[in-house]
Amino acid sequence: MTTTLSPAPQWELHPQLAADTVPVGDLPLSRLLVNRDANYPWLVVVPRRAGITEIIDLDATDRRQLLDEIELVGQVLRAVTGCDKLNIAAIGNVVSQLHVHIVARRRTDASWPRPVWGAVPARAYEPAELDHFVDTLRHRIGF
Amino acid sequence: MTTTLSPAPQWELHPQLAADTVPVGDLPLSRLLVNRDANYPWLVVVPRRAGITEIIDLDATDRRQLLDEIELVGQVLRAVTGCDKLNIAAIGNVVSQLHVHIVARRRTDASWPRPVWGAVPARAYEPAELDHFVDTLRHRIGF
Repeated sequence: MTTTLSPAPQWELHPQLAADTVPVGDLPLSRLLVNRDANYPWLVVVPRRAGITEIIDLDATDRRQLLDEIELVGQVLRAVTGCDKLNIAAIGNVVSQLHVHIVARRRTDASWPRPVWGAVPARAYEPAELDHFVDTLRHRIGF
Repeated sequence: MTTTLSPAPQWELHPQLAADTVPVGDLPLSRLLVNRDANYPWLVVVPRRAGITEIIDLDATDRRQLLDEIELVGQVLRAVTGCDKLNIAAIGNVVSQLHVHIVARRRTDASWPRPVWGAVPARAYEPAELDHFVDTLRHRIGF
């Protein structure tokens, strides 16, 4: 069947997000990533929708799905880390591709009580520590 | 009718949030506030639910209502300001009462592209400028 409509643009993970993270798996809407900064257990949820920079520009179905995925990921992250507080944020001033940070904070962490962005230099994980964190998340989420 | 259940704890706006903001009005779930920092058009949405510190601890109905209110407020804020980007965040490391920041960012603002928290000292509004912003929001939202 022919059509005059252009195909929907294809979603690809922004190269800066790809460089800063390791993938955990794909939820129905979003790709789940772990930020390589070992200062905090720091997840990033990226809806696989091309050209979207704001939560309020997702359609209502996608927006509710994103909320459900934030809730799932937040529950798992809190259970796995036993954190004191979650920080959940869509900023996107540097990388405009819509992505939501879900960060497990402790009162003893490197930047408490400041937000994590730009607070202290990133610290690299030990490879085994990062692998263990990703495996734990995959197990708990059921990837 | 008597009952052995304790009454639900009463919600009150946290004194620090009250000191830092002026009220715009009450949406079905949340109180809408304007942050007194004139560096950015900066709104705060506070669900009127006592004892809640995390979005993921709201029940599913309240969580969806909060999302709908964030969407409404975000659309109005973007329309009123013509901003380049919205920053939407639930941090709560200092004031644990659940509150969501919705900040209109411009590439020319005082902290771009950094997040707004702790970036530069707060700047006071001219009273007439603050009144005008609050009136504009009330008119657009229909309070």
